[in-house]
Amino acid sequence: MVQQTASMVNGVNVNQLVGTIEAVKENPDLARCKFRAETEWVSGGHSRTKIQGFYAAGQEDASRAQPFILDGDEPPVLLGENHGPNAVEAVLHALASCLAVGFVYNAAAMGIRVESLTFKLEGDLDLHAFLGLSEKTRPGYENIKLTYRVKSDAPREKIVELCNYVQKTSPVLDIIRNPVPVSVTLEG
Amino acid sequence: MVQQTASMVNGVNVNQLVGTIEAVKENPDLARCKFRAETEWVSGGHSRTKIQGFYAAGQEDASRAQPFILDGDEPPVLLGENHGPNAVEAVLHALASCLAVGFVYNAAAMGIRVESLTFKLEGDLDLHAFLGLSEKTRPGYENIKLTYRVKSDAPREKIVELCNYVQKTSPVLDIIRNPVPVSVTLEG
Repeated sequence: MVQQTASMVNGVNVNQLVGTIEAVKENPDLARCKFRAETEWVSGGHSRTKIQGFYAAGQEDASRAQPFILDGDEPPVLLGENHGPNAVEAVLHALASCLAVGFVYNAAAMGIRVESLTFKLEGDLDLHAFLGLSEKTRPGYENIKLTYRVKSDAPREKIVELCNYVQKTSPVLDIIRNPVPVSVTLEG
Repeated sequence: MVQQTASMVNGVNVNQLVGTIEAVKENPDLARCKFRAETEWVSGGHSRTKIQGFYAAGQEDASRAQPFILDGDEPPVLLGENHGPNAVEAVLHALASCLAVGFVYNAAAMGIRVESLTFKLEGDLDLHAFLGLSEKTRPGYENIKLTYRVKSDAPREKIVELCNYVQKTSPVLDIIRNPVPVSVTLEG
């Protein structure tokens, strides 16, 4: 009888990670996910998003007893009241949190122990399009610069290799770097 | 002497909005913004983002005495502990909060009073790429479906027109629908 012990690396249960990969290999449909959000405008630039249920591993998830609440707003210079970060700042958060998961999970799978991992992000954006003053500049970021800093006892070349791998497999980096079709429907 | 009164529509100061547009017309450099975030990995899938300073209207902003803190994590089925929404869920929040601002600001500029505005979003994502099991499926969303519901006393055709305009000028919708260059640098 083999004793199963949770092998934790970087706070990641490597047994569960390997088990997940094996399960998806056997049943590819388990990889299909649906993520959701509901957002309600409050006033001015302020809106509030609830995030709770999603579909993954063949079923609706029920692990979240309460929804996560995210506030979005603009700062006063952009006519808001700072009830939360603005939408393009939230994109930077999404990007870094995605790369963090990718880096740490893959490091765990490779047996690389991560001591610390931090990201700095900056995006350039020209407001002309948003303000309706130009169709030549794009509404979104012209570019995003991201730097990360890793402390680990792994050799530098392993970390570089891991970074490159994570960039190829990061959902949010893909969403930002490449086109995603968005269908918009107006109801009611 | 003309008395300036704040003309608030939908919680938006229309005088300030018009003033901002006029200022950018006179000095296009005022439209250049830099938004920033700093993210620190905590453990497992959990990371924490601080958002505070940014550059806009020709100067560094100082309106936020404290940073906004956003937690990102995965749910247990994706090996996390639900300390926050995951990265691709945060993308949905960013998208809806962007469209909310665009809709409400432009409605205010057009004199359309918005009574309520809500969004439902869902994105389909296949985990094969993230798990390193396929290079055929993309890591990010295959598609995002967004529906919104507006209550307003404006005629339906005005609302439809406004929705279409907002889609053309939304920063986050542009970021998701179209490619944004992201430069990644590994430090330290």
